[in-house]
Formats: sequence, C-alpha cells, structure tokens
Amino acid sequence: MMTKQFEEKNHHYQKRINTFLADFLTQHYSKSNRLIEAMSYSLLSGGKRIRPLLSYATSEALGLDLKQADFIAASVEMIHAYSLIHDDLPAMDDDDLRRGKATCHVKYDEATAILAGDALQAMAFEVLTLVNTDPQIVVKLIAQLCQSCGAIGMAGGQSLDLESENKQLQLAEMDNIHQLKTGALIAAAVEMVGILDPKCTEKTQQALKKYAYNFGMAFQIIDDVLDIIGDAKEIGKPIGSDIGNNKSTYPAIMGLDASKSAAIKHSKEAVSQLQHLPNDSSYLRYLAQYLVSRKT
Amino acid sequence: MMTKQFEEKNHHYQKRINTFLADFLTQHYSKSNRLIEAMSYSLLSGGKRIRPLLSYATSEALGLDLKQADFIAASVEMIHAYSLIHDDLPAMDDDDLRRGKATCHVKYDEATAILAGDALQAMAFEVLTLVNTDPQIVVKLIAQLCQSCGAIGMAGGQSLDLESENKQLQLAEMDNIHQLKTGALIAAAVEMVGILDPKCTEKTQQALKKYAYNFGMAFQIIDDVLDIIGDAKEIGKPIGSDIGNNKSTYPAIMGLDASKSAAIKHSKEAVSQLQHLPNDSSYLRYLAQYLVSRKT
Repeated sequence: MMTKQFEEKNHHYQKRINTFLADFLTQHYSKSNRLIEAMSYSLLSGGKRIRPLLSYATSEALGLDLKQADFIAASVEMIHAYSLIHDDLPAMDDDDLRRGKATCHVKYDEATAILAGDALQAMAFEVLTLVNTDPQIVVKLIAQLCQSCGAIGMAGGQSLDLESENKQLQLAEMDNIHQLKTGALIAAAVEMVGILDPKCTEKTQQALKKYAYNFGMAFQIIDDVLDIIGDAKEIGKPIGSDIGNNKSTYPAIMGLDASKSAAIKHSKEAVSQLQHLPNDSSYLRYLAQYLVSRKT
Repeated sequence: MMTKQFEEKNHHYQKRINTFLADFLTQHYSKSNRLIEAMSYSLLSGGKRIRPLLSYATSEALGLDLKQADFIAASVEMIHAYSLIHDDLPAMDDDDLRRGKATCHVKYDEATAILAGDALQAMAFEVLTLVNTDPQIVVKLIAQLCQSCGAIGMAGGQSLDLESENKQLQLAEMDNIHQLKTGALIAAAVEMVGILDPKCTEKTQQALKKYAYNFGMAFQIIDDVLDIIGDAKEIGKPIGSDIGNNKSTYPAIMGLDASKSAAIKHSKEAVSQLQHLPNDSSYLRYLAQYLVSRKT
C-alpha cells in the first residue's frame, strides 16, 4: 500500500474517533454545563489521535471488529486529554496554548480545568464498562488502564519528570521516566486491544507489548529531536543548543545524530515484532515508520 | 445496643479501613517516591471515614462477608481523598489545613497534589477490579463509581458549587448541587454494597438508595449548621449571621431551626427505610441518628 493510502487511513480513523467521542458526550452527557463544555473543548480539540490510531491498527492486525476498538481508543484518548489539561496547568507546565488554541484553564479557569481533567478520567473508565464482551475481559481492560495511568504509570512518570527538573539524568533514568509518562498509555492503546481478543495468544500479546514499547521509545526520542529542530527553524537557535543545559532530553544526553539513530532502531525493532501477528499488520508497520519520519 | 457499643464499632471499622488502605498501598505501591508519599499522606490522614462506615454497616445489614466490603469502602475513600486534595488547591478552596494538618499541596507542592489526586482516582478503580466476585458485578460496581464521581456526580457538583459562588440559590438548586457534590459518593458507599450482593432484590436496592439519599441530605444540612454553630463558639459571631450574606447554605436559605428540623426529618426518613433490609440494620440506624446529633 502506498503512503498516500495510509495517510487516508489516518484521516479516516481520526474522523472515526472524533465522531465516536462527540457522540459519546452527546449521548451520555446531554445536559450541558460549564464543566461538560470544558471537557468537550479539550477532548474534541483534534490532535493527531496517535493512540486511537494505534488501537485501530492493532485491531486490524488481530482481525477484530472495529466497534470494540472504538471503546479502547476512546478510553485511552480521554485519559490523554485529561493528562494534557492537568499538565498545562500553571502549577505544572503553565502552557497557554495547545494545538494553537487556548489551553483549558485559559479558556475557562483553573478550577474548571482541574475538574474537567478529573471527570475525563472517570469517563475513561466509564467507557470501558460499556464494551460489549465477556465481563472478565472488561475487568482486565480496566485493570490495565488503571495501571497505565496511575501512580506506577503515567501520573507516576509525570511526577518523576517534575522531580528531575534541573537535574542531569542518566539515560536509564530518562528511559524509565518516559516509559511511564508517555510509554505506558501508548502501550495501553495497543495491549488493551490484545486483551480484547479472546484468541490472542501469549506470544502475540508479547509481540504487541514489544511493538508498543519500541513505538513509545521512538515516539519520545523523536519528540525531543523535533523540539530542537523546531526551535532551530522558529527562533534561529543553533541545532542541538539544548545539549548541555539542564533539560534532560535524548539529544542532550546522546547527541542529535545518535538520537535519530536510536529512534530508527526502535522503529525497526517495533516493525520486527509484527511477523508474530495473525492478520494484516501493514498499518501498524506504517505507523511505526511514519513516526520516525514525521516533521511535526 | 447502647451508643457506647456503636462508638466502639465505629472505632473498630475505622481501624479496619485504615489498615486495609495502608496494606493496599504497601502491597501494590511498594517502591516509594514523592508521589506515593503524597498519596499516602492524604489517604492515611485519618478523618471520620464516614463513607467506609456506611459500606460496612450496609454489609452487616445485608449479611455479607466484610472482606468484600473492604474493597468498596477503600475505593470510595480513595475517591473522597482525591477530591479533598483537589478541593483544597489554591485554584479551588485554597485551604492550608485539613484535619489539623497541612494540606497536600502545602506539605508537598501543587503539582504533586494534582498528580496525587489523579493517581488516587485511578487507584480507586484499580481496587474495584480486585473484588473477588462475579466479573459482571465488578463491572457494575465500576460503572456506579464512575457515575458517582464524574461529570454527572461529584466533579459535576463541585463545578456547579464553584459557579454558584456569590449567587443566591433556590433551595432546589442547592439540593441538586449537594446531591451531586457529596450525596453521590455517599450513595455509592451504600448502593455499591447492594450491587455486591447477588441476593439483593430491587426493593432492597431501592431502600438502600433512599436511605443513602436521606443520609446525604442530613449530612450536608448538618455540615452547614455546624459551620454556624462552630463559628459562634470560636469567634463569637452571633448564630445565624451567615443568613443574608452571599454564601448559600441551608441555614441561610431556611434559617437555623428549620435546617435542624429538616436534617432530623431526613435522618428519620433514612431510618424508616431500614425495615426493608434482611439482616440487622441497627448500625445503619445508629449512623443516621448519630449524624444529626454530632458536634463536629
């Protein structure tokens, strides 16, 4: 399949998840108020929807009904949206803009933004209770999401990241932070689809796990790399100028070229896992390859 | 049974939930760090544990194994703890003290407090996935907790409460806010135990629902009343001076005596539901009566 066709697939699935999320809000939270407006504002503000794309791609690779993947994709994106709202707060990263729009606490107010994040987290678990499958599987899905987003997952990683500010980290420490902060939820987007599949063997689940791990690592390294290249374009700062300052990034620790190579290595390692999957995994391959070539 | 024996029961169950929560943290989050310390600090800081007491009392009234009630009690208390941490933040109520100790964001920092609340919410759902029963029941428990604490429950009520500041509310509006903000989680502490019981009939579940509703109403009215009586003792302000200022409280809307009467009426209505329960409901009766006679 040509790149253009995969780009269309991205577009198709982005539209699919956006519609699902909008419909979910309308159906389950029909009586609008300030809080629900703030939740919708952040949840429906677009973005690449990379986690939902991973859920749909995994669903394709396992030959599953996409209607079940909708719920996984939605729950993970709700957690992602809540984490962005809270990360943007003045007490955290203090960001005014997100995807070119005012952040939730700027558009509304801090208290509403805190509550919108809180309520989106509850909604992420709610959407999983609605998956139409064996309840034992539903419980496993919920357990996986709890661990991915809680104190030994995403929230834990964000806390370690804040603690590490102005400290020079070792590579292993930084790997650990990113595996928790961004990796755990990316892994959930993939592995939860595996849990959904009653035919998924231990071997397949392990392949998904390794795919997701390497995808997450490549994703984070490229994020750091783009931060520098982006800076170079935007404010004329020389490439690699973050190296040596107190911001722990992959380029700062291992240099820009080595970072790019590491990202490519992880992307290839992710792709190598796909041979263990039962159905057409070309879209998962595309996503892992697109990742390291992306410009934004 | 004499009041003293019920007080001992309170003490016994407070100890039971405190031990359960401490053990849960140690077993599931053994690798301590700043975030987990902050979570423990708030979760294990004592308090009346009124929601867990309600779960245990309901469990007694249905004749259930208390080992299952532990998980319900813990999940509800984790949600309560997270909500207190977030409510105390500068952007919300901006409180420095809670139960005579520094609030979470004062003891640690705002970012850590936000994340501790977030991770406690995830932990509340995690603990429910571990209830040893039919998975279909587990899914129902989780769905109930989501609704009780999310945008059409506790978080929604807190948002409406913030919006209503400096507005003169009608009684029905205030009832609605409190039913969401505090009533929904109190109801969850009771009704989730009903869900746990495969023998619980629709009639029994309705009785539990009405008990919990009236308990929650009495609880909130008395809270408002104590606010005034407490003030009178502490700073010599005349009783009822809150009436007419812009703080919407029950005494402000209906007067102090009428508020007390309303609380007693709700307490009696709660107690009247207990005839529909299959086992010894004397402890639920005691809790509803104690509620309106409490001084703190």
